[in-house]
Amino acid sequence: MTRSFTIGVDFGTSSVRAVVVDCADGRTLGTDVFDYPSGERGVLVDPRDPHLARQNPADYVAGLEASVRGALAAAERDPGFARDRVVGIGTDTTGSTPLPVDAIGRPLALHPRWREHLAAHAWLWKDHTASAEAAAITDAARRHAPEYLAPIGGTYSSEWFWSKIWHCRNVAPDVFEAAASWVELADFVPAVLTGVTNAAKIRRCVCAAGHKAMYSEVWGGLPSADFLATLDPALAELRSRLYDHAYPADRPAGTLAAPWAEWLRLPAGIPVAMGGFDAHYGAVGAGIRPGTFVKIIGTSTCDCAVASADTPLPDIPGICGIVNGSIMPGYYGVEAGQSAVGDLLAWWVEGVCGGGEALHAALSEEAARLRPGESGLVALDWNNGNRTILVDPRLTGLIVGQTLRTSRAEVYRALIEATAFGARAIVERVQEYGVPIERVVCCGGIAEKNDLFMQIYADVIGHPMLIAGSPQTPALGAAIAAAVVAGPEAGGYDGFESAQARMTSLKEKRFLPDPAARAVYDELYALYRELHDGFGGRTGETGTNEGTFMKRLLGLRDRVASSGASA
Amino acid sequence: MTRSFTIGVDFGTSSVRAVVVDCADGRTLGTDVFDYPSGERGVLVDPRDPHLARQNPADYVAGLEASVRGALAAAERDPGFARDRVVGIGTDTTGSTPLPVDAIGRPLALHPRWREHLAAHAWLWKDHTASAEAAAITDAARRHAPEYLAPIGGTYSSEWFWSKIWHCRNVAPDVFEAAASWVELADFVPAVLTGVTNAAKIRRCVCAAGHKAMYSEVWGGLPSADFLATLDPALAELRSRLYDHAYPADRPAGTLAAPWAEWLRLPAGIPVAMGGFDAHYGAVGAGIRPGTFVKIIGTSTCDCAVASADTPLPDIPGICGIVNGSIMPGYYGVEAGQSAVGDLLAWWVEGVCGGGEALHAALSEEAARLRPGESGLVALDWNNGNRTILVDPRLTGLIVGQTLRTSRAEVYRALIEATAFGARAIVERVQEYGVPIERVVCCGGIAEKNDLFMQIYADVIGHPMLIAGSPQTPALGAAIAAAVVAGPEAGGYDGFESAQARMTSLKEKRFLPDPAARAVYDELYALYRELHDGFGGRTGETGTNEGTFMKRLLGLRDRVASSGASA
Repeated sequence: MTRSFTIGVDFGTSSVRAVVVDCADGRTLGTDVFDYPSGERGVLVDPRDPHLARQNPADYVAGLEASVRGALAAAERDPGFARDRVVGIGTDTTGSTPLPVDAIGRPLALHPRWREHLAAHAWLWKDHTASAEAAAITDAARRHAPEYLAPIGGTYSSEWFWSKIWHCRNVAPDVFEAAASWVELADFVPAVLTGVTNAAKIRRCVCAAGHKAMYSEVWGGLPSADFLATLDPALAELRSRLYDHAYPADRPAGTLAAPWAEWLRLPAGIPVAMGGFDAHYGAVGAGIRPGTFVKIIGTSTCDCAVASADTPLPDIPGICGIVNGSIMPGYYGVEAGQSAVGDLLAWWVEGVCGGGEALHAALSEEAARLRPGESGLVALDWNNGNRTILVDPRLTGLIVGQTLRTSRAEVYRALIEATAFGARAIVERVQEYGVPIERVVCCGGIAEKNDLFMQIYADVIGHPMLIAGSPQTPALGAAIAAAVVAGPEAGGYDGFESAQARMTSLKEKRFLPDPAARAVYDELYALYRELHDGFGGRTGETGTNEGTFMKRLLGLRDRVASSGASA
Repeated sequence: MTRSFTIGVDFGTSSVRAVVVDCADGRTLGTDVFDYPSGERGVLVDPRDPHLARQNPADYVAGLEASVRGALAAAERDPGFARDRVVGIGTDTTGSTPLPVDAIGRPLALHPRWREHLAAHAWLWKDHTASAEAAAITDAARRHAPEYLAPIGGTYSSEWFWSKIWHCRNVAPDVFEAAASWVELADFVPAVLTGVTNAAKIRRCVCAAGHKAMYSEVWGGLPSADFLATLDPALAELRSRLYDHAYPADRPAGTLAAPWAEWLRLPAGIPVAMGGFDAHYGAVGAGIRPGTFVKIIGTSTCDCAVASADTPLPDIPGICGIVNGSIMPGYYGVEAGQSAVGDLLAWWVEGVCGGGEALHAALSEEAARLRPGESGLVALDWNNGNRTILVDPRLTGLIVGQTLRTSRAEVYRALIEATAFGARAIVERVQEYGVPIERVVCCGGIAEKNDLFMQIYADVIGHPMLIAGSPQTPALGAAIAAAVVAGPEAGGYDGFESAQARMTSLKEKRFLPDPAARAVYDELYALYRELHDGFGGRTGETGTNEGTFMKRLLGLRDRVASSGASA
C-alpha cells in the first residue's frame, strides 16, 4: 500500500511549528520549530502601554518556510517517507490576529514606509489596546443589533477583529487609510501558500469570521454597513473591501503555489486547507466529537465542543462563540475559555514565591498530599479576567480563608481548584443548553505533566479526564484538515470523522472522578459560585456587574493611576 | 538632690526583661534579659495540638532573679547609682496566663507529682485549647447574665481565665482537684516578691480580674456562684478559693520579702507594685492619657485608651475590655487589639515568599514607592481571626483584586493597609462611644523601624502617629508604678500623671496624615468595611455571623478534618 503524508503548520504566539504526519495513523515523521526573531519572544511591545502586543508579519513568512523545510528534512530520516507522497498542507494560527494588507494582499508592515509603525503590523490576539472600541461596539450592538452579539456571548471583545481595526482608525488613521483590506492571520497564511496576489481574493475561514468578526449567513455575512456606520463611517466603507463569504474547513483555500512547491520540493498543486484557529484545529487533533469536550490547557485555556448541526443550537449566555462549521463542517463549533490557568500558577510560583520549575514540582507534590477542603481556602481564578461565562476581562482575583499557617502549597492547590471550578462553570453552562458532554480530552503540557491538576479537574468536573495522544494537536489537526481536502483518492479521507478515527489517539493514562472528593468539591463549588456570582455579577448577563465591589475597586485604582499620570 | 531609682520587670512570651530606671527622668540605667529555658522559646507545646501553649513557672522564678540581678549589675556602671536608693519594684506580665497553685501559693508544676503534666503549668495567653468552654461560657452568660459580657465586648474568649480553668477541669480533673487556687501570672510574680505563703492572701490586680475574669465591683466581684454552677458546680466551688476583691495599680501588692532583699542586695521593705498586664503597663510607659491612644505593635497589636472615670463610660460593642482603674487609677481602661499584625507580614514575607529580614526591607522599600489605591488590592487582616471589633477568632483572611502582574510588594502593602483599616475600625468605634482620641503613640519594633507602616497608619487613621521614647515601655510602665507606690517622700510620685510627665517621652520622628493619601484611603476603607461587614457579620453583634461565607467554609474544613481523623 502506498503511504501518504500531510503537513500541518501551527503559528503560535512565540514560534511556528511544522509537522509531517502519516495519513494512515497520524504519526509524526518530522517536526521543526522556528522562533520568531522579532520583539520579545516574538511579540512587539510598547514600554508605555502594557496592553499592546503586535507581531512582525515577516516572521510568519520566514517561519513558514523554515519550519516546513526543517520538518521535511526530519521526515526524510524515515525511509518510508517521500516528498512526492505529501498530499496536502494545513495551517492554524492564533486569533483574532488581524493585519492590514495592501491591494495585492501584502502586509503593510513589509513596506519600508510602514515598517516602523506598530499599527501596521499584526495585532496579536492578546493585544488589549482596543477596550474602549470594544465597549462601544458592544453598546451599539445591544441597542441596534442584538442578534450580532447572541452567538458570541453577549459582549464584543477588545481582542477581536473590529475592535482592533477601529482602534487603528482612531490612533493611526494613516495606517488605516493605507490598508486595502484587513486579514486574519489564519487566512493570511493559506493566502501566502496559495500565492494569492489580490487582497479581494483571499478566502476567509468561517472560524475566524464567525467567532471574531460577527459574520453569519443568517444576516448575510459581516455586520451591515448601516450598523458599522453608527460606529464610524470609515468602517462601513471598509466593509466592501473585506469579504462577503467565509468557508468551512473541508473546503480548500487553494493549491500550493508553484514557487513554494519548488522551494520546498513538494508536488505542485497539492491542496492547501482553509486556515483555522489553533484551538479549533487543536480540538480536531484531540479527537473532538459530540460528547467529547476538548480543553487546550496552557497559560490560558481554550475549550471546544461540537454539537450536530442537524438540530438548531440555541445561543448560550456567556459562551463566546457558537458558529456553524467553525471547528468541523456539519457541527456547531462551541468555543469557551479561561483567561488564566498556567499563568495563574506561574504568577503564584514564579511571581510571588520566586521559584521556578523545581518549586512548581515541589508545591505540586506537597499539594497532592492535601485533601479537598482541608486548607479552608477558596479562590477566584480571575487574575486575568473571566473569558467564560462572565465575559469580563476586567475582573480580578480573590483568595479567602487564609490563616497564619496557610502554606504556599495550600494556595497553589486552591488556585488549581479555582481554575477547575471555572472549568466546571463552563461545562455546566454548555450542558444546560443542550451540548452533550461525557468526557474531557486535554492537550498541553500541564495535562501531560501534572497529575494533581488532572485529578482535581476530574473530581471537580465529574467527568473522566483524558489526554490527547499527540503533544502537538493543533499542528496535527491542521494536517488532518489537509488529509480531508486531499480526499480519499489521494490517500486522504472523505471527512473529518473518518480522518480523526485513524489519525488521533489518547494516552493510556486517564483520571476518573473519586466520589468522596467529588462530594467535598460539590460543596466547595457552591461556595465558589457564591463568590463568582457575588463578585462577578449575574452570570451571563453582561454589563450587570458595573456597580459591584471589584468594579468600584478598579474604578478607584484607575482614578489613582490617571491622577498620577497628570501629576 | 538625692537620686532615686525603681525597677521594672516585664515577663514576655519568650523572656523576662528587667530595667533599672531613674525616677527623675525615666532613663534606663541598666537592663537585662533572661530567656526562658523550657520548651520552644519558652513555650511548652504539644505536637498533637497546635492550640496548646503552656509555660514552666520555674522559668518565671529563675528569670525574675536573674534579670533583676543582671539589670542591677549593669546599673552599677553608672556612678550615680546606688542599690540603697532603689525605692520600689513593679512587674508586668502576659495575660490571661493563669496557673494552678497549692495552698501556700506554690505552682503545682513545681511539685514532682505534677511536673510532667502540661495542665499543671501556666496556661499561656495564647493557649487556645479552651474554645469549646469559651463558647459555652458566652452562651450561658448571654442567657443568664448578659451584664458579665457587656464590659468585655460581648464574647468570652478561649484565651481567658475561666475558659482555661474549666478546660483543665474537663481534660485534667486530677490537676483541677489538686489546685487550691488559680492565679494570674500578673498576680503570681508580686506574690513571689512579697513572700506570700498563703494562696488566699495573694492580692489580685483589677487589670486581670476585670479584663479576663468577669470581675466587677458592680456585681460584687467575680461571677456569682449560681452562674458558675450552671457551667460546672466545681467552678462554683472554686470561686470561694479565688478572691473577693481586686486592687488598682496605685496600691502596693506588699513589700519586698527579706530573702529577696538579701539575694538582690536591695533595701528590705521597699514597696512592690500590683502586677499588671504588659499592654497596660506598656501604655503607661508610652504616656497614655485621655486623648492619647497607645498601640503596642508586635506580632499582634494591643491597643489601650483611657477615659476619665468621673463620668460613666458606656459599654462599647466589640471592645474586649472596659475596666475602671485597670490601666491607671481614676480612669476607665479601654483595651482592644488586632490578632495579627507583625505576624501577618511575617506570614507573607517568610511563610509565602520564603524570605527573611532582607526581604522585609526590600518589600517595604518597594511598597513605599506605590501610591494608595494603585495596586487595586484590598485585604482583610483576619489570618488569625479578629479580636476587635468582631471578637471572632475563627475569621480568616481575604485578598481581592489580584492580577497576573500583582507583585509581592503590592500584597505586602495591601496587608499593612488591611491592618491599618482594622486599626481605624477600632479607633472609630472607641471614639463613637465617647473616648477621646487625638493622637496615637506606638511602641514596638515595627513602629521604630518601618516608616512605611507608620505613614500608612497616619494616612488611614487620620491622626498623628508618634513613637514612644522608650523601647521597653512595659518595663518602664512597671517602674513608673513602682515610683507611684513608693510615693513622693521616697523620691517617687504622688500619682501616675505626675510620674508619666517626668518619666515618659516621645521620639522626635512623627508621622502626620497626608490629605491626598487620606482621601484615597477613605474610599479604600469604605471598600474594606464592605468586606468586613459582609464576611465578618454585623459588627459588634457577636454570634450573628454563623451562617456567613467564612463560617460555612470553615465548617466544611472542619468536617473534612474530622472525617480524616476518623479514617
